[in-house]
Amino acid sequence: MKKLGIGIVGTGFMGKAHAFAYRAALAAFPDIPVPVLRMIADANAPSAAKAAAQFGFEASSGNWRDLVNDPAIDVVSITTPNILHKEMALAAIAAGKHVHCEKPLAPSVAEAEEMMKAAEAKGIVTQVGYNYIKNPLLKLARQMVEAGELGDITGFRGIHAEDYMHDPDSPHSWRLDPVGGPGVVADLGSHIIGMARFLLGPISEVNAELETVVKNRAASAGATERKQVLVDDIARLMVRFGRGCGGMIEANWIATGRKMQLGFELTGSKGSLVFSQERFNEMQFYKAGGDPRNGYTRIEAGPQHPPYGQFCVAAGHQLGFNDLKTIEIAEFLGAVGGGQAAGPDFREAWEIQKVVEAAVQSSRSRSWRNVL
Amino acid sequence: MKKLGIGIVGTGFMGKAHAFAYRAALAAFPDIPVPVLRMIADANAPSAAKAAAQFGFEASSGNWRDLVNDPAIDVVSITTPNILHKEMALAAIAAGKHVHCEKPLAPSVAEAEEMMKAAEAKGIVTQVGYNYIKNPLLKLARQMVEAGELGDITGFRGIHAEDYMHDPDSPHSWRLDPVGGPGVVADLGSHIIGMARFLLGPISEVNAELETVVKNRAASAGATERKQVLVDDIARLMVRFGRGCGGMIEANWIATGRKMQLGFELTGSKGSLVFSQERFNEMQFYKAGGDPRNGYTRIEAGPQHPPYGQFCVAAGHQLGFNDLKTIEIAEFLGAVGGGQAAGPDFREAWEIQKVVEAAVQSSRSRSWRNVL
Amino acid sequence: MKKLGIGIVGTGFMGKAHAFAYRAALAAFPDIPVPVLRMIADANAPSAAKAAAQFGFEASSGNWRDLVNDPAIDVVSITTPNILHKEMALAAIAAGKHVHCEKPLAPSVAEAEEMMKAAEAKGIVTQVGYNYIKNPLLKLARQMVEAGELGDITGFRGIHAEDYMHDPDSPHSWRLDPVGGPGVVADLGSHIIGMARFLLGPISEVNAELETVVKNRAASAGATERKQVLVDDIARLMVRFGRGCGGMIEANWIATGRKMQLGFELTGSKGSLVFSQERFNEMQFYKAGGDPRNGYTRIEAGPQHPPYGQFCVAAGHQLGFNDLKTIEIAEFLGAVGGGQAAGPDFREAWEIQKVVEAAVQSSRSRSWRNVL
Amino acid sequence: MKKLGIGIVGTGFMGKAHAFAYRAALAAFPDIPVPVLRMIADANAPSAAKAAAQFGFEASSGNWRDLVNDPAIDVVSITTPNILHKEMALAAIAAGKHVHCEKPLAPSVAEAEEMMKAAEAKGIVTQVGYNYIKNPLLKLARQMVEAGELGDITGFRGIHAEDYMHDPDSPHSWRLDPVGGPGVVADLGSHIIGMARFLLGPISEVNAELETVVKNRAASAGATERKQVLVDDIARLMVRFGRGCGGMIEANWIATGRKMQLGFELTGSKGSLVFSQERFNEMQFYKAGGDPRNGYTRIEAGPQHPPYGQFCVAAGHQLGFNDLKTIEIAEFLGAVGGGQAAGPDFREAWEIQKVVEAAVQSSRSRSWRNVL
Repeated sequence: MKKLGIGIVGTGFMGKAHAFAYRAALAAFPDIPVPVLRMIADANAPSAAKAAAQFGFEASSGNWRDLVNDPAIDVVSITTPNILHKEMALAAIAAGKHVHCEKPLAPSVAEAEEMMKAAEAKGIVTQVGYNYIKNPLLKLARQMVEAGELGDITGFRGIHAEDYMHDPDSPHSWRLDPVGGPGVVADLGSHIIGMARFLLGPISEVNAELETVVKNRAASAGATERKQVLVDDIARLMVRFGRGCGGMIEANWIATGRKMQLGFELTGSKGSLVFSQERFNEMQFYKAGGDPRNGYTRIEAGPQHPPYGQFCVAAGHQLGFNDLKTIEIAEFLGAVGGGQAAGPDFREAWEIQKVVEAAVQSSRSRSWRNVL
Repeated sequence: MKKLGIGIVGTGFMGKAHAFAYRAALAAFPDIPVPVLRMIADANAPSAAKAAAQFGFEASSGNWRDLVNDPAIDVVSITTPNILHKEMALAAIAAGKHVHCEKPLAPSVAEAEEMMKAAEAKGIVTQVGYNYIKNPLLKLARQMVEAGELGDITGFRGIHAEDYMHDPDSPHSWRLDPVGGPGVVADLGSHIIGMARFLLGPISEVNAELETVVKNRAASAGATERKQVLVDDIARLMVRFGRGCGGMIEANWIATGRKMQLGFELTGSKGSLVFSQERFNEMQFYKAGGDPRNGYTRIEAGPQHPPYGQFCVAAGHQLGFNDLKTIEIAEFLGAVGGGQAAGPDFREAWEIQKVVEAAVQSSRSRSWRNVL
Repeated sequence: MKKLGIGIVGTGFMGKAHAFAYRAALAAFPDIPVPVLRMIADANAPSAAKAAAQFGFEASSGNWRDLVNDPAIDVVSITTPNILHKEMALAAIAAGKHVHCEKPLAPSVAEAEEMMKAAEAKGIVTQVGYNYIKNPLLKLARQMVEAGELGDITGFRGIHAEDYMHDPDSPHSWRLDPVGGPGVVADLGSHIIGMARFLLGPISEVNAELETVVKNRAASAGATERKQVLVDDIARLMVRFGRGCGGMIEANWIATGRKMQLGFELTGSKGSLVFSQERFNEMQFYKAGGDPRNGYTRIEAGPQHPPYGQFCVAAGHQLGFNDLKTIEIAEFLGAVGGGQAAGPDFREAWEIQKVVEAAVQSSRSRSWRNVL
Repeated sequence: MKKLGIGIVGTGFMGKAHAFAYRAALAAFPDIPVPVLRMIADANAPSAAKAAAQFGFEASSGNWRDLVNDPAIDVVSITTPNILHKEMALAAIAAGKHVHCEKPLAPSVAEAEEMMKAAEAKGIVTQVGYNYIKNPLLKLARQMVEAGELGDITGFRGIHAEDYMHDPDSPHSWRLDPVGGPGVVADLGSHIIGMARFLLGPISEVNAELETVVKNRAASAGATERKQVLVDDIARLMVRFGRGCGGMIEANWIATGRKMQLGFELTGSKGSLVFSQERFNEMQFYKAGGDPRNGYTRIEAGPQHPPYGQFCVAAGHQLGFNDLKTIEIAEFLGAVGGGQAAGPDFREAWEIQKVVEAAVQSSRSRSWRNVL
């Protein structure tokens, strides 16, 4: 059984999620290479050491370069803020590591392209953390679209709204620093844009409006000093897909009340699907015509929807957020081990970034923009 | 007790709805003038006669001018296709009748304006059939916005989607004739635009895309001959409100599966509301902060939400579509009797028409348009 | 066109509901006899006069016997508290009137039986106000059961819970007077028992527990004096149906939060149905086997579910509580006019009363009781 | 940091769930002892070896006694069919191991009592796999009851219904063998009985009806031979709680359509809760009185509901079934390590078994039975 040495850079929200996933991946997917948890790195060395103990890694370091240069490490997960992604990813690629990087891949299209080209030139396997599309029901949705079960697709309405930025007194953070790229259109928008692409293919044209509703925020926790906000906190997009249909997309991180409203309504000539991450173990399906008892059917996730069955043999027991991350990591390890790459890889993340960029440009010019 | 002679023009879907409403209005609202059901008119005289018997009208006619000219009639309801509205309304206004007209008021802004000006010059009471905003919970929503209960409004996402046009083999009809004005943006779009205005006030700017997805339809029921469709069946709008916030609106009559998806998500800095006509006796309300048990609260319509109690003293028993029409008609009769006009009147309908028109222009020019 | 003179006794919640229904019935159901609104009676004569004006009745009286003895009246609706039903109904029957009586029919099985026998001896048409089963979707549910679409029925779980008695400081009322019979098991229990019988046929055996949770209440509104409560406010029943399956039923009028939780889950070997009056324009249907996309389908009420189409030609627009009452009254008038009796008639109400009585006896003896 | 050697007996559905949980426990709960995965045993030795590799155990065995007798093992998880629990548990207890055993603990009260007494005599820590009550929202529900937030509890309606036995052609299995004790009342009933006890305390009296609806099943997969079913597949219970209120409980494994309908409606004088495992990351809460905007509030699980935050710092991301198992195992390991025992332990499982037994006896005698 092939083994792969694993390294994680970062110990925050996503670092922990990756650690859970690497610990669970083989138990759920016995055919992937065995992940061996080698090292976890964090600029704060004691945090790294603590995380190593907690997550079962053999070693830790306060310097991510130790990890990238460790010959026993085959796979690197980058879970740091996105302004750090490029330097780390390029170093890891140069060292021949396979790289999983959190989203958004980079602050700009140019940087994302540079990373993608480096990875492809080196021939390593990449993946980017768009975990929500790993949901077994999303895989089903895509299959239904591809099989024509919904007929010709006539429209898409997508949303990713949360409220974690809705309080003007919550402190300013790196997510609000324009050095890291746009605001919510990149942070949450990239998720729903990626989901739209996963389901329907390329977005060819965008007409967007981005706005900064909360003009300034506390400079730091509890501070009376205010700091101006320079990035968008609501983004509204009209889009055209390459396949010919249109749609609307909203990204919003001041959506008071919403914790995880990532979802869509997808309409075709023969049927439609409605999904929200708020109840991500179910999906509504309407099939036109015929049956006098028709209506929206609530499909509950079960073993008939791979890879649900890798986690539980019984329907209705439900996957959690961390399980989606486990599917993602397992697919990545499977691809590294010689299986089929499931993506989304750096190229796909670059494509998503181009849509984000087109939205920013469109909003500035207040006009339709092609996604180049 | 004051009495008002009533005349209805048209005996179709809306003619019947008006008849129900005039029959129920006084029983629900005892303080309005007594409606006396004088005449119902339809180009098909036997239909008119049959309707008169069924709905309890004293007389019928195959000529709507008989009705408009009848001195015993004080109030005229116009429920015919919208290309006929102007001629009928102007005649009724000229005869000094108070006029209730179904929506959309007219095929164009110019015609709507002409009707509005004639009505205002004559000083009669007008109303237009945007019945969905008569819902007690929508009145509550507006009060909450106005009272600042939701804080500063930061965004609106509105939809009116149905699927009654989704089948390409359903026959061509007057709704698809461009002589009557735009397609779904006017038919369903005017409802959600009107609702947005009811809740948040004027829309100042629009950026829209209208498309005709079903290019041709059966020329008539069962015909093999096809007829080209010249009006829109999906309309997507980005909007700016005069109050400063933005929003998105979709109107769609090929939304496979949806029968009455008229609704919105309205977000403010202190709270938010979620509503769908699919379950119009309830509304979700989220109030930010404070309570450790917070979340979306499902407000169920009851006597604490006027005028629900006019229909039923007990909460949770639920109003139906025809009850909304009864509220509308009762408010109209109350205004005619000297009470406060509740609208929406011809002026408001003209304002809605201007937004529809701006959407059409915006879609043609693919650019933002001011609503003049 | 045949005409029927109508008289209503009582002007409260149900008196008003009947008035709405008689006013709307013909407009919705053009083939029934024409109801002519002759008289409304109430012990409080001014209330009767006011109601007559409001509801469009020709006359009013402070003495119900005037109404019962009026030769111009063919049909009598009795909407008074149930201790008054028998005297009024027997007088109306003696006078040859057709009688609609609100539920529960009488305080005891013996009285219900006396009323039923008098009506059957006289050959008049009767009906009892179990309006909830007039829902088009409930008619569909019964058809599905009868057609075997759910296979062999294996179980029923029914509930009718509201909270209008949950406050111990709400004043004592006639509903709490044991002279009127049992408490919630008769008031709400009779609805869900009637619904169970409507769907599945006779209940043959009962094992129940009734309890009085709120032991005393304010003697009258605002009074400090307390009055002991002598009737049940929660009733729990295990039941056996004559068809062979079992079930559970609860009736509860102190169910904090519930306004209209009247519903059931009905399970068969091939499918199941879930319904709640809280959203009575929809019903969940699960069909076993076969389709890989199966799950609970939300059937939305529409014209394909008679008699929905009598009120509205478009699906999803929704009926309200008063519309259910209109269906009930229209079916009653249709039967009086020579059509098929749709019930539930006095005999059915007597059968329901026997189940109620068996529950009371079972609770006292703490044992299973046959429904005789 | 203290370490604990772990052994799991069984590699099926629950064996795998325990393995996931032991792998994830420390990552989520850093303060518990470090679980060291020593051995997994299964009567099928190759299955055990395969599981050891997949789940990361150091060793495997085809003989569970090897595991129980291994001095490096401190903690034993028993995940085999319940007829095997007693022998295994008694051996593990005798060897001084701490024991986690799946539910139901044993086929009978007597056997459960014997196991409980042996464990208490030895002073080891025990736990039984009632994982659903480990849900952060269920912990919240219990706190709300205990804090009086719902007032006096007036009623409980509980259900655990699934449909995995609804097909008469699904093969006979060990779950249907009466040697293992009753049928659904023990298998699923014990979950909802345990949940009722968790929330409201002891059940003192039971009146139940158990029935076997599917009389015979295929003797084995695909066999034409049929085997008579001797255990219950629906159980209906009326119950009285020691605290004074009553309730109803149903357990049903032929509930066509239901995959995981484990839930309750819990009513108090000041509020109520509604929960279903079908959407176990949310709970409905109604608070009586006061607020004019009241209604059922959908509480979404988040970090404010411990221990949700151990898995994810952001609300709305949702836990999955395996996470509930991780909480259970982590609490168990914490107790072994000297923390507070969280249960449910063998004593609690014995108490649950007594309710199950009382239900069986009650059904036979068709009468109320005390839970002794």
